[in-house]
Amino acid sequence: MEKIDLKINETIDDLEFNNLKIIQNNDGFKFGIDSILLTDFSKKIKNESIVLDIGSGSGIISILLSEKTKSKKIIGIEVQKDVADMARRSVILNNLENKIEIINDNIKNIEKYFQNNFFDVIVTNPPYQKNNTGLKSEDEKNLISRHEVECTLEDIIQKSYKVLKDKGVFFMVHRPERLVDILYIMRKYKIEPKVIKFVCPKVSSKPSLVLIKGIKNAKEFLKVEKNLIIYNENGTYTKELLNIYGK
Amino acid sequence: MEKIDLKINETIDDLEFNNLKIIQNNDGFKFGIDSILLTDFSKKIKNESIVLDIGSGSGIISILLSEKTKSKKIIGIEVQKDVADMARRSVILNNLENKIEIINDNIKNIEKYFQNNFFDVIVTNPPYQKNNTGLKSEDEKNLISRHEVECTLEDIIQKSYKVLKDKGVFFMVHRPERLVDILYIMRKYKIEPKVIKFVCPKVSSKPSLVLIKGIKNAKEFLKVEKNLIIYNENGTYTKELLNIYGK
Repeated sequence: MEKIDLKINETIDDLEFNNLKIIQNNDGFKFGIDSILLTDFSKKIKNESIVLDIGSGSGIISILLSEKTKSKKIIGIEVQKDVADMARRSVILNNLENKIEIINDNIKNIEKYFQNNFFDVIVTNPPYQKNNTGLKSEDEKNLISRHEVECTLEDIIQKSYKVLKDKGVFFMVHRPERLVDILYIMRKYKIEPKVIKFVCPKVSSKPSLVLIKGIKNAKEFLKVEKNLIIYNENGTYTKELLNIYGK
Repeated sequence: MEKIDLKINETIDDLEFNNLKIIQNNDGFKFGIDSILLTDFSKKIKNESIVLDIGSGSGIISILLSEKTKSKKIIGIEVQKDVADMARRSVILNNLENKIEIINDNIKNIEKYFQNNFFDVIVTNPPYQKNNTGLKSEDEKNLISRHEVECTLEDIIQKSYKVLKDKGVFFMVHRPERLVDILYIMRKYKIEPKVIKFVCPKVSSKPSLVLIKGIKNAKEFLKVEKNLIIYNENGTYTKELLNIYGK
């Protein structure tokens, strides 16, 4: 393993899968269960896929997908300079430089880097909240990770349509309260929603997350899958969640 | 009770609620659990509401709502002449002529009868399948009840926007596979989806129905409620379903 510089407040966390590790900033936005669930939801992609991870943050999804799929290349794009730099060091830490590349830019500029119809797959765990709504996180880094400051859901979906191949696949995790926005904008830009799956803390609770799969230029027909439940009623993790975590 | 003529193949069924009865045709489309669930989902409307029931069929929803709410007037509109006639006889059978009126026409013609911004509430259990999809029912009556032959989802929502008051409430039951169509068209016509609730046969199954509440000209924010489950794992009805049936 190469020697990697850690900056102040950064730690190396073990992903408990194939010896993968990730650098995270203790003062920054740390990956959550949503990234893990999105990775699992999107792992059945065809071999040799070229993948774009929009708003790749710490690189968690790109790093996990590189090991859980037979994808050919994964490009992460992340607007925050220090977060993109941290992700690059995580890529090196895992010896994945041949597989993963991190671009530090706004998704709005994606066409500077790639031609239209280039990617087989897009994955994204975008900021969940509209700008000017909800409690703003105190510092700018968290603000950009949680709120649509740098780009909106519409920017992400519009650019995804451009750079996805015909019949290319789009995976996203988001909040249920944005479902109308999501389905409306996806259909508007011809990334037809094909599968949605809600994630509930318990069987008896309303959903806290929604996983969405869309296909560029596909026919209209939605499959709503059964809910994914995180906890049993007694507070232990459900079997399906433990499966996802590989336990 | 007045004497009501029954036509061939018609029977009077007891609704097991407030002595209500309904005439149904054994060869026709009989009401199902979807109408019962929609009635329950839409029963918390304000007193003195004027309600429109689009595609009212046998009149099941209008008749139940007239007893379960303090609505002022309920108008059912049904395109099939003999079905509308049967519903009218059910209204008379229950002595509800002062409360419920059945119009025999296509929803596309609703503006012939009412001015814009007239209704407080709309309920609808529309045909679920797009025309030219799925197995067509053998006879024309079932075809019109199940397929979008006489009007499309877009017709229903477009007309609903016109005749609903500002902030008027729209309730619908439909199939989950049409969810993208539903949310897209509702937002397009400014009946903003505010609440959705999926109905699942069992906890472990994917949803078979979805209940939707929208509000005309409302702000964007969706609440996805916890699923309504019909059967326990052992095949008996769940408590929440028995509550809805008033057992």
